[in-house]
Amino acid sequence: MKELNYLEKDISKISQILKKGKGSFKTRGWFKRKRELKNKIFFILFDETSELQCVVDRDKALKDLIKDAEKVTIQSSVELEGQLKKDERAPDGFELQIKKMHIVGLAQDFPIGKDLSTEFLMDVRHLWLRSAKMRDALKVRATVFDSFRKFMEKENVVETQGAMFVSGSVEGGSTLFEVPYFGKKAFLTQSSQFYLEVLMHSLGKVYTIAPSFRAEKSKTRRHLTEFWHAEVELPWAHLEDIIDFEERMIKFMVKTVVEKNSKELKALGRNTEDLMPTIEQKFHRKKYKDVVKDAMKKFSYLKHGSDLGEKEEREITKSLKKPLIITHYPDSLKPFYHRRNPDNPKEILCNDILAPEGFGEIIGSGERVWNEKKLVEQIKKDKLNPEDYQWYVDLRKFGSVPRAGFGMGLDRFTAWIVNAEHIRDVIPLPRTMNRIAP
Amino acid sequence: MKELNYLEKDISKISQILKKGKGSFKTRGWFKRKRELKNKIFFILFDETSELQCVVDRDKALKDLIKDAEKVTIQSSVELEGQLKKDERAPDGFELQIKKMHIVGLAQDFPIGKDLSTEFLMDVRHLWLRSAKMRDALKVRATVFDSFRKFMEKENVVETQGAMFVSGSVEGGSTLFEVPYFGKKAFLTQSSQFYLEVLMHSLGKVYTIAPSFRAEKSKTRRHLTEFWHAEVELPWAHLEDIIDFEERMIKFMVKTVVEKNSKELKALGRNTEDLMPTIEQKFHRKKYKDVVKDAMKKFSYLKHGSDLGEKEEREITKSLKKPLIITHYPDSLKPFYHRRNPDNPKEILCNDILAPEGFGEIIGSGERVWNEKKLVEQIKKDKLNPEDYQWYVDLRKFGSVPRAGFGMGLDRFTAWIVNAEHIRDVIPLPRTMNRIAP
Repeated sequence: MKELNYLEKDISKISQILKKGKGSFKTRGWFKRKRELKNKIFFILFDETSELQCVVDRDKALKDLIKDAEKVTIQSSVELEGQLKKDERAPDGFELQIKKMHIVGLAQDFPIGKDLSTEFLMDVRHLWLRSAKMRDALKVRATVFDSFRKFMEKENVVETQGAMFVSGSVEGGSTLFEVPYFGKKAFLTQSSQFYLEVLMHSLGKVYTIAPSFRAEKSKTRRHLTEFWHAEVELPWAHLEDIIDFEERMIKFMVKTVVEKNSKELKALGRNTEDLMPTIEQKFHRKKYKDVVKDAMKKFSYLKHGSDLGEKEEREITKSLKKPLIITHYPDSLKPFYHRRNPDNPKEILCNDILAPEGFGEIIGSGERVWNEKKLVEQIKKDKLNPEDYQWYVDLRKFGSVPRAGFGMGLDRFTAWIVNAEHIRDVIPLPRTMNRIAP
Repeated sequence: MKELNYLEKDISKISQILKKGKGSFKTRGWFKRKRELKNKIFFILFDETSELQCVVDRDKALKDLIKDAEKVTIQSSVELEGQLKKDERAPDGFELQIKKMHIVGLAQDFPIGKDLSTEFLMDVRHLWLRSAKMRDALKVRATVFDSFRKFMEKENVVETQGAMFVSGSVEGGSTLFEVPYFGKKAFLTQSSQFYLEVLMHSLGKVYTIAPSFRAEKSKTRRHLTEFWHAEVELPWAHLEDIIDFEERMIKFMVKTVVEKNSKELKALGRNTEDLMPTIEQKFHRKKYKDVVKDAMKKFSYLKHGSDLGEKEEREITKSLKKPLIITHYPDSLKPFYHRRNPDNPKEILCNDILAPEGFGEIIGSGERVWNEKKLVEQIKKDKLNPEDYQWYVDLRKFGSVPRAGFGMGLDRFTAWIVNAEHIRDVIPLPRTMNRIAP
């Protein structure tokens, strides 16, 4: 087996070749398509940067090259040397005329063709991830993660980490995964929020990006059993502060993706013009009670206090062009740690943010109860045992401060940005009730 | 309860106050110490940026202020207004003469004093994290994460994520956590390496920072059941490429921490001069066989093929001033996915990197088998079932390429940088066999 040298300086990526537009190049990648036409064999070569039409001309090529060109299969990895020519019939207007070919890894018969079931494509996910569609989505995803962190850096929010193994619930017991742990039991974290509230006392404004786990039985287009959860807690913050922070953050993130990934967004069929209102205009804002009053016109079963699910959110947001901030949910709809409005304890000082175009919730947010007595009251009201939350209550015993924070699923956020039909289209290895492999 | 406004523009952080050096300030934070001396009550105020001596003078203060100053306890949160004065007896050369005090959260009797057991401090971890020692270590930790990513950005390595729920083992079955999963069973990932090898075909050079889980029964100063794992896979890479990459990366990361966190390192007792050889000099490098030969002089029980554990690594590295790269371990010591040397199948094309000063392993690295037949052979040789690795083997069937990568525990790396006695001193919520709370 010939040893290849990764650091070889004269290897060009396809994007570099297309940029130069002429000359001789050495390159490497995988063949995506192969087609024979008269005396020519055409290939589409791809690497992580782009795709390039390549050709072997039987009338001009040496015998060994023709043999290799005949033998090589799609998805084989190759090293090529060739001459770039303009060709208006080629997808990018250029064609590489292959002079030398070295087949690095000859592929067996590739199982992925056209019109395959979702189930099959999930079974061969490790191969399907090579598709241009997944590649583009994963690049946008990388920018989403990065732009979130860049915003935190600008705002002096410090990165930290909670724990994955926990002894109790944040979001409620029904979606907890239990793990046998050296003869005892542990749970997988549903959220790092409580730990961020601990770490806030040490580091000030804090954030984390970490997996959260929910034993979700719902098979919707937006639920997963594990997801990458971006969470922020700000000490000394109130509802207006956190809403302002979130709106600026979303604008920054969307703007960054549009600037950096316009090519990928276009390839995925997302018109970036449709994201401009989010970047440029102030978000919509309504109180829960007014949102429900409107939604009743469409869904007669709704009443004040009804939860807004996927279907209702789709209806509420489908004609919107920019996100909607919904504030002041009724106290029955949110967990105990949310702070009630001191002037009206029936409503909560909280907000969700719904993405437009029928997408729905991307952020859950609000003030946290920071008074010990009130927190214990609310834990009991939710029929939970304050002893199970002893350390969380402790934070209110020793120098408590006002606080607000939010959580955002970065998978879901990415799905909105690329306008994906299903959350599985933007995450490398989606995990659902029926899927833990590959 | 008075409403505070987080965005209040005239609040100064302690570091800003110390920088200005004179004037009137509004600030907020927590009291760390309180001491009465003659007619004065002294406090040490802290926030996430620094600490500041504050004083209330009974002879000058209004009655309400004196009452609050008497009442206020350590770890209470306060808002203060005062006048900064030079005072050579104060820790930073300045003292804030308090004019107004608003007690935000009056703390109960704080359970943490001096000379407490490690076990107790772990029980009150949620409060112990406020200590200056933990605060400093966590700031360095944040820089370690950030500097790793900044290096990846410089090198065009794309961020991505594997899955936490997996159906099989990477590092061997004995340390797998099993999770009941909707009537079936799943495992928690031990490493994202195999998934990075998948994603490499899509995104080129890839990295992830994600939790990995090991059901470690060992109670050493460097083992945890969950740890934050930075992993990289480079397509078309060989052993020399990955070693070069790692050495440049470690230099960059250490340099970044020294530049950004000199204050924290100093406070933690780490002399940054001791990190300069790592930044400035080429690392030590030896083959495994020569390392073992040397180590035999001290440990007579060692022979060629012996594993190097914590004790041996401490001895090997204790007199070193910069990292040691150990290459070419014998094939019996490493899992099946490592590529054997084609010229000598008894040795592996791999390397570990050991941190100096007695610290030991921080990186495990090497080429991966990229030939299908060889991979299946090695899986069988390790007495594993190739069917359990079907999708991993598939990567070698469809356009395989040479590849190399590594894994680095960022917790452990941070422990070395700050010279921590124990890995728990650099991670917010360490998880071990006996510890999943708080």
